[in-house]
Amino acid sequence: MRVDVLPLPDHPSANPDGPAVVIDVLRATTTMTAALAAGCRFILPAAEVEQAVDLARPYRGGEALLCGERGGVKVEGFDLGNSPLEYTEETVRDRAIILTTTNGTRALAAVRDYRPVHLGSFLNLAALGRELATADRVTIVCSGNAGRLSIEDLACAGSLVRQLEPAGPELTDTARLAALLFRSVRARLRSFVAASDHGRALAALGFASDIDFALRLDSLALLPRLEDGRVVR
Amino acid sequence: MRVDVLPLPDHPSANPDGPAVVIDVLRATTTMTAALAAGCRFILPAAEVEQAVDLARPYRGGEALLCGERGGVKVEGFDLGNSPLEYTEETVRDRAIILTTTNGTRALAAVRDYRPVHLGSFLNLAALGRELATADRVTIVCSGNAGRLSIEDLACAGSLVRQLEPAGPELTDTARLAALLFRSVRARLRSFVAASDHGRALAALGFASDIDFALRLDSLALLPRLEDGRVVR
Repeated sequence: MRVDVLPLPDHPSANPDGPAVVIDVLRATTTMTAALAAGCRFILPAAEVEQAVDLARPYRGGEALLCGERGGVKVEGFDLGNSPLEYTEETVRDRAIILTTTNGTRALAAVRDYRPVHLGSFLNLAALGRELATADRVTIVCSGNAGRLSIEDLACAGSLVRQLEPAGPELTDTARLAALLFRSVRARLRSFVAASDHGRALAALGFASDIDFALRLDSLALLPRLEDGRVVR
Repeated sequence: MRVDVLPLPDHPSANPDGPAVVIDVLRATTTMTAALAAGCRFILPAAEVEQAVDLARPYRGGEALLCGERGGVKVEGFDLGNSPLEYTEETVRDRAIILTTTNGTRALAAVRDYRPVHLGSFLNLAALGRELATADRVTIVCSGNAGRLSIEDLACAGSLVRQLEPAGPELTDTARLAALLFRSVRARLRSFVAASDHGRALAALGFASDIDFALRLDSLALLPRLEDGRVVR
């Protein structure tokens, strides 16, 4: 097994091979996993706000929810923002979700040539580790934040790298870096993520409890994946 | 003081402010520092081979040396490659060096709007730390390798971040990551760098001793900087 970590989605491999895992801890992949756990039918990720609005058009009232953020806050006129706490069973069950976020949905677009594309977050790493245990190659793609490396995504990637270690994988430099980061911060993960650029920005917007939610390690045994442009269970 | 680390030169700040430090441990900034210590007049960095050849034209035989690598090895017909061990006093004293390398000279081009632009390597970090101790902002730019983050550059950046800590700087996430990486690997720096993607590639080409040279911590108290397109002492 060969495990690679891309700190940003800018440079996806020229030769996509094997499964990819997209990670956006704060908050897209955390939120999508929560939405699927709460019983939504599927999620249509949209890179841009306008695209999200277009994707919502075919649905009749109540069938779909138009969701997403810009600058961390709900897009004006949308049903929901990007806080996983909004995606309750009562709100999302049996509905389609159309979601646009600043970083995570763009990262999903960058890895569309990999098969399969999994969504990773701290919520479902154990399930992902089991699923990928026998893969030949695994590419873990961090979403970052506005073009900058996000250390919470890299730490999450590192946790997954460590879970794949029993297979004796060959690690690229960035996979080693991610594993080393996770090892260094695992004992103080909450304070580490809260002190990150992205964590502090979310707290300032009133979303500190999203950080606690995002760090519910292995709370969901779901394997969300991208299939034909939809994120499904 | 605010300290930022750019893991790759792709995204230099839109608002360059204060000094930048460009790092390419293996090998451009190490080699340029060694060449200046050996008494060369200055170094003209060139992003491309053709540009290097053009820059050499005005010089008469013996006044300048045409130097550089592609794929790690000396460009066909050039005087020297990119191994710091080639840049002896006997060879380079009082000569101009025109140097093109795959990563480091491109990183220098990316930070040309910062003032001043320093060259950093493990050879001169203590001197750099003293020089930058009173700066308001410091931007440390890692060269990477073929568009990928190089962990030896990030560790070197982290060592510089740690030397700036007495000033109580505000650190960006990537500056924290770099400092944490250096702290984790400092006790085994030689094996860490030798096991890196770039370190292994150099060893395979016969340049293992360049790694030892690049890790002569604080062996040179030089402050190479870019001025009017030339690297000078």
